[in-house]
Amino acid sequence: MEKGNANVGCDLRKQEEVMEVTGLGLSNKKDENFGEWYSEVVLKGELIEYHPISGCYVLRPWTMSIWNAMKKFFDAEIEKLGIVDAKFPLFVNSDDLRREKDHIDGFAPEVAWVTKTGKSDLEVPIAIRPTSETVMYPYFSKWVREHHDLPLKLNQWCNVVRWEFSNPTPFIRSREFDWQEGHTAFATKEEADADVEEILELYRRIYEEYLAVPVIKGKKSELEKFSGGLYTTTVEAFIPNTGRGIQGATSHSLGQNFAKVFNINFQNEKGEKAMVWQNSWAFSTRTIGVMVMVHGDDKGLVLPPKVASAQVIVVPVPYKDADSREIFHACTSTVNTLKKAGIRVLADFRDYSPGWKYSHWEMKGVPLRIEIGPKDLRNGQVRVVCRDNSAKIDVPVANLVEQVNQLLATIQQRLFEVAKQKRDACTQIVTTWDEFIEALGQRKLILAPWCDEKEVEKVVKARTRNEMGACKTLCSPFEQPKLPEGTLCFASGKIAKKWTYWGRRC
Amino acid sequence: MEKGNANVGCDLRKQEEVMEVTGLGLSNKKDENFGEWYSEVVLKGELIEYHPISGCYVLRPWTMSIWNAMKKFFDAEIEKLGIVDAKFPLFVNSDDLRREKDHIDGFAPEVAWVTKTGKSDLEVPIAIRPTSETVMYPYFSKWVREHHDLPLKLNQWCNVVRWEFSNPTPFIRSREFDWQEGHTAFATKEEADADVEEILELYRRIYEEYLAVPVIKGKKSELEKFSGGLYTTTVEAFIPNTGRGIQGATSHSLGQNFAKVFNINFQNEKGEKAMVWQNSWAFSTRTIGVMVMVHGDDKGLVLPPKVASAQVIVVPVPYKDADSREIFHACTSTVNTLKKAGIRVLADFRDYSPGWKYSHWEMKGVPLRIEIGPKDLRNGQVRVVCRDNSAKIDVPVANLVEQVNQLLATIQQRLFEVAKQKRDACTQIVTTWDEFIEALGQRKLILAPWCDEKEVEKVVKARTRNEMGACKTLCSPFEQPKLPEGTLCFASGKIAKKWTYWGRRC
Repeated sequence: MEKGNANVGCDLRKQEEVMEVTGLGLSNKKDENFGEWYSEVVLKGELIEYHPISGCYVLRPWTMSIWNAMKKFFDAEIEKLGIVDAKFPLFVNSDDLRREKDHIDGFAPEVAWVTKTGKSDLEVPIAIRPTSETVMYPYFSKWVREHHDLPLKLNQWCNVVRWEFSNPTPFIRSREFDWQEGHTAFATKEEADADVEEILELYRRIYEEYLAVPVIKGKKSELEKFSGGLYTTTVEAFIPNTGRGIQGATSHSLGQNFAKVFNINFQNEKGEKAMVWQNSWAFSTRTIGVMVMVHGDDKGLVLPPKVASAQVIVVPVPYKDADSREIFHACTSTVNTLKKAGIRVLADFRDYSPGWKYSHWEMKGVPLRIEIGPKDLRNGQVRVVCRDNSAKIDVPVANLVEQVNQLLATIQQRLFEVAKQKRDACTQIVTTWDEFIEALGQRKLILAPWCDEKEVEKVVKARTRNEMGACKTLCSPFEQPKLPEGTLCFASGKIAKKWTYWGRRC
Repeated sequence: MEKGNANVGCDLRKQEEVMEVTGLGLSNKKDENFGEWYSEVVLKGELIEYHPISGCYVLRPWTMSIWNAMKKFFDAEIEKLGIVDAKFPLFVNSDDLRREKDHIDGFAPEVAWVTKTGKSDLEVPIAIRPTSETVMYPYFSKWVREHHDLPLKLNQWCNVVRWEFSNPTPFIRSREFDWQEGHTAFATKEEADADVEEILELYRRIYEEYLAVPVIKGKKSELEKFSGGLYTTTVEAFIPNTGRGIQGATSHSLGQNFAKVFNINFQNEKGEKAMVWQNSWAFSTRTIGVMVMVHGDDKGLVLPPKVASAQVIVVPVPYKDADSREIFHACTSTVNTLKKAGIRVLADFRDYSPGWKYSHWEMKGVPLRIEIGPKDLRNGQVRVVCRDNSAKIDVPVANLVEQVNQLLATIQQRLFEVAKQKRDACTQIVTTWDEFIEALGQRKLILAPWCDEKEVEKVVKARTRNEMGACKTLCSPFEQPKLPEGTLCFASGKIAKKWTYWGRRC
């Protein structure tokens, strides 16, 4: 009997057997035990390995192909914007690190210091970059002299180190992580503002079009903005299972704060001395963690087709009386057909049972599984199974490429729609403190009218602090619902200036 | 008068004027003052900036596009070989670092240690990877269990830190550098040996086909091989101006040394326990330094077209009575035509003189310059100037793409041929100690019959040590000239086993 024809009870029993024998399957459930489920799924899905140094992780090939798919998209888009690659040192001179006061106040507690090389102590300890503003901007000052040196638009793909002491979580909060960081300088605030927005839109596209994760574009509060910047824009994701918001990626306007400190001036077209307007923006491997949290299920990872290393896994289902050579041959020919059409496909010919392979590739989140058994051969078809909703479709070999492409597109879209529905179902509009507290207890994504005052946010944080952490602003969405005149702030009772999302943070 | 029509004396005068006014041009000459010339050319060619932390450099966009061109080639080739990307932590557990004795003996003096984060001292100092064998192989031991887990073929693009105390030189010897490091494990020595060779061939192609730098493929001596490895293969380049050999890139057979230490075992197809055979291989941004040293001249960088960020620079040459709008229009249309044909092209419309622009883009090494002046407009042509040999060709606009493509291919080939001729002219075959010392004094690349004994190499190093450093083996070339029976080692007088290249090292 093929697995596809088994009834549910039988399926469950089989899965338990497989787990016992091979150690496959997850021992935690997403709805019951989210944190442990996540740690288990990133490990068993072969995305990461844990490292003896807490907060450091090995990114396995299954991760890197997701990362490289995003990188490829982003590189092509920023090239169109005239942004070019550079690579600055890993190490920061400690004097430079300290030049912008708010900035160093924000990062100092997390900086890792090299104090020794070989057996010798260094005369002056050297910092490892937590971000590269202070590494780069001394050079910006040298490179920008005249108006035609602007705009200056650099990007680097690199690793940074932030020695956070809070709970490290793979992808989401790690002490070393990979990211791109873009740093741009413009002659005018208008150009700089446009750049902030253009990049944020790319981040939205990465989340929504590649990772199939819905995000909210908005502006951070004064309390939550980048240390040393003018304002911060963000794409915010939400994890329904934990009721936590998560900062997806940020695009910062630095205004002229760093330009002042690092003397980044130029002669404008009128021959006058002027100061540049700067931005910095970054997205990191955190994106992958958000994707896992949003789509993963109790069978493991669920990868959106656009970033999946393998979009299709082909599994031969030989049967005792059937000619298995013919089945293997059909699998190879299926792989070749799909490969030729540009579909990323693997076949699993190892000497494990089909059931083991189903579980293994479900754990790894491959969007489509193709099973080929004797019945399929006879009927000139293959059995296609969708990872996300377990739908099973018999596809005639003649239509294979067309239908696989269609199914991949459908899954990509469906993952996004389902995630959006779940998020929207968690969103709660509140207008009073009592409603706010109730919604927070229900782990909602809260949208509330707010007076936009720093001190009020501090009070809200203090009043909501418990073992789960404090509630913060996530962002004020660019798409503002109508705010009727005279609406009051849910927290302070003052006149509300805007709608703002609030929640606990990952 | 267009610069192209000036006589040589006039050209030189002009160049000096330009230097005084704009600070363009080099103050050191390659033949007179090589070290200073090199430091100046990488800076003024806008490849790097120096950093306050000695031995660290900023890689500017002009460098990154060269690096990315090599990366693109290499990624495509290793993908064909089934090698996949991974990313391991920057930090090494100090216990793991020490597990292979020869390895740590080789790297310990250069390791940078993090001892402090924020204001706290770490309980146990953490090493920054000087290379990743000891970071990766504990995981290899976990991942490799059965024969179908092999081959395991990983690559990572990353930064490593080696705190060398000898003279830092941009690209050639820096304390942090970017590289790819591949790490592979096989069931059999035969497969592992084939991998060593396949990768070395890719390194040869990077040097010869992309950087137009001739290299010698060969094997390192026991004294010069990788710490902890079985044998090391290399592509060796040579810098005629200094008479120094330079290790271009290396592909190491690690044998089973690391497998023993890290317990990387598997059950083979017969069900027996077996140990893997491993390799590691890397090329770094050093490649770029070698390219600069080999091709650069007294006007600055000379970039091979295949890696040049811009292959063509278009310079308008307006003339007092002529319509400069028409000239600017012709420049834009030239850029569009070339771009459409896939040629990397820029135009310089800044308000500097054509002479200044010529010097600027010569300094940056752009392979072809296109000048468009009134005479060119009248004749329906453009003036094309080759960076490498200053040849000037008038090209009809109708044939532009075809001729530019042809010229770029010719320059690529010519750079290689010229470099090869220069290197070959420096190569000296010696058979006696006296000839060896004489050739060494003449800064030759020395090929000598050798007994292949470690102790003899040590003696040669000791006897040749002077302020320029000691003479070492570079490699024993895979292409061995005939070694007549009974030939004696130039150094020990014992029976020679092979021809080996000797020289001082960069």
